[in-house]
Amino acid sequence: MVKLILDCFGGDRSPDVNVDGALAALSAMPDLYLILTGDEAVLKGKLKGREYDHGRLEIVHTPQVIGCDEKPTDAIRLKRDSSMMKAVMMLRDSDDIAGMVSTGSTGALVTGALVRIGRLRGVIRPAFCPILPTMAGGIVGICDSGANVTVDAAMLRQFAIMASLYLENVYGVNKPRTALLNVGAEAEKGDDLRREAYSLLDTTDCLNFCGNMESRELLSGKYDVVVCDGFSGNVLIKATEGTAMELLKKLKKDIYSRLLYKIGAALMKRMFMEEKEFMNYQNYGGSVLLGCSKLIVKGHGSSNSVAVQKCLEQAYRMEKSGLGPQIEDALSRYEHYEG
Amino acid sequence: MVKLILDCFGGDRSPDVNVDGALAALSAMPDLYLILTGDEAVLKGKLKGREYDHGRLEIVHTPQVIGCDEKPTDAIRLKRDSSMMKAVMMLRDSDDIAGMVSTGSTGALVTGALVRIGRLRGVIRPAFCPILPTMAGGIVGICDSGANVTVDAAMLRQFAIMASLYLENVYGVNKPRTALLNVGAEAEKGDDLRREAYSLLDTTDCLNFCGNMESRELLSGKYDVVVCDGFSGNVLIKATEGTAMELLKKLKKDIYSRLLYKIGAALMKRMFMEEKEFMNYQNYGGSVLLGCSKLIVKGHGSSNSVAVQKCLEQAYRMEKSGLGPQIEDALSRYEHYEG
Repeated sequence: MVKLILDCFGGDRSPDVNVDGALAALSAMPDLYLILTGDEAVLKGKLKGREYDHGRLEIVHTPQVIGCDEKPTDAIRLKRDSSMMKAVMMLRDSDDIAGMVSTGSTGALVTGALVRIGRLRGVIRPAFCPILPTMAGGIVGICDSGANVTVDAAMLRQFAIMASLYLENVYGVNKPRTALLNVGAEAEKGDDLRREAYSLLDTTDCLNFCGNMESRELLSGKYDVVVCDGFSGNVLIKATEGTAMELLKKLKKDIYSRLLYKIGAALMKRMFMEEKEFMNYQNYGGSVLLGCSKLIVKGHGSSNSVAVQKCLEQAYRMEKSGLGPQIEDALSRYEHYEG
Repeated sequence: MVKLILDCFGGDRSPDVNVDGALAALSAMPDLYLILTGDEAVLKGKLKGREYDHGRLEIVHTPQVIGCDEKPTDAIRLKRDSSMMKAVMMLRDSDDIAGMVSTGSTGALVTGALVRIGRLRGVIRPAFCPILPTMAGGIVGICDSGANVTVDAAMLRQFAIMASLYLENVYGVNKPRTALLNVGAEAEKGDDLRREAYSLLDTTDCLNFCGNMESRELLSGKYDVVVCDGFSGNVLIKATEGTAMELLKKLKKDIYSRLLYKIGAALMKRMFMEEKEFMNYQNYGGSVLLGCSKLIVKGHGSSNSVAVQKCLEQAYRMEKSGLGPQIEDALSRYEHYEG
């Protein structure tokens, strides 16, 4: 049995999508056990009349909720009875709980994870690794996408190792082609950090390092893992998602501007729906916080129930794959690099 | 008469698109005078039989070309007879030449501009400011998009001032809404640099500072100027362009996969062509290098003739607007900030 906690509050559409996602995940994974944290009366109300295996779901009551605009350090100190911090503390204290999923405040979750739970042996800093679909039909992982706005070369190498193991073990990508996000393809491009990271990645034998990648190639399918500092990784993923979203919106608006276009679009309805699903980042789950000593998956604040279910599946598959010990083992071979 | 130099070699499709763009610009702007640098025999061959005002075009012969993979410092030292470096030197030495356009190596152009031409009074570092169309029908300038991979807060403020003046004077945007690229909206987001820049921008009275912007909002039309370090600005613009390009490619491929879709797309042909034109970044010219003592516009390496023409128009309009003196005047009021 894989035991996971789901923080049911704090997202834009919580707790409805969290409850729906939880029940879908329970039905899809027969050996999954879920603990929901949040207002018990509200959660019981949402569960009432729904069909699910009562023996694999429990509720832990928490009266508080952490808002997205709260200062993370205050949140973890003052809101111990929140759905998120209760989940974090239970995760820390219970050996039989493998991980947690939250759609709440990213800052509070990262701070809570670092301060209350801690890192795998040898990890300098945990890092987020969200997954995007590529136009070639595969996926690409971006690590770090925002947990660390400043990094050094040793951290970037760890991000590369952790993300490669993640893609290999959880998504079955063989020898993930790993690139360093940079402003140009040549080895000497970028700032000192990028040049140092380049030569470090290039000499790390457990990696399939393929050199620098410019951001325009993210969706091309040429790479499986992109390594970057959390600031530019955040810019990268949000620019990609934002552009896709804005283009779809424009397309829709233009289609509605003329009858002829509406007729044409009607013939292409199925295709447009498939495009929309393809570009719908909800379908690709959340950002895994690689390097924590327990599994933590952060769902988008605007997650729907499918996204919540996918996040639970990610945590489940990570646990099954034994990713944590593999990361510790790999990092132990490189832990003495000091820059 | 506005006198500009066009570097006719070094781009992916040079010199054909450069010559075509030059002739289109001469025809569109009756008081434009163009000097083309490059292999004279080749350029004369391209011009043969074409109709244009011979009194407003001259060729300066240069036997060398700078490749995109050459080290910039070597290129400017060893290739003085290249189409780019000859243009740079002529621009420096002739008071009556207002500016230059190149579709060649970005690194060589920036280095050449810095070393051979120099900066406007008070400018710490020149910065690129490309323009993108927004989904709201307007435009947005991104400054810096790659000239400076590391920056400080004082530089970011100068980028904001220069780009605001550029959008206001060259594109007629009234009080450009200016944002700082960051990982979240709140003032305390990001690293030390971003927090320092935020409070500096917020207290600069000549700016219409609107706070932090996440990259997903770039095309939303909420902002006219986005200020960022050259590394994340480069990631931002290439991710945006890359996503748009990859999505259009996928759409096209999917349309061709079924007859029904092809019929639907035929009805929407005009719309798709308009979308394509809208998203075609060639139509929005090149990146202006703001802060140089002479006007320099860098066209994309893959520029077509329309892009070259737009670049020439950008330089022409900058000269007409008297942007340089305005930048010097504005910066003189803030030049003592040391951080």
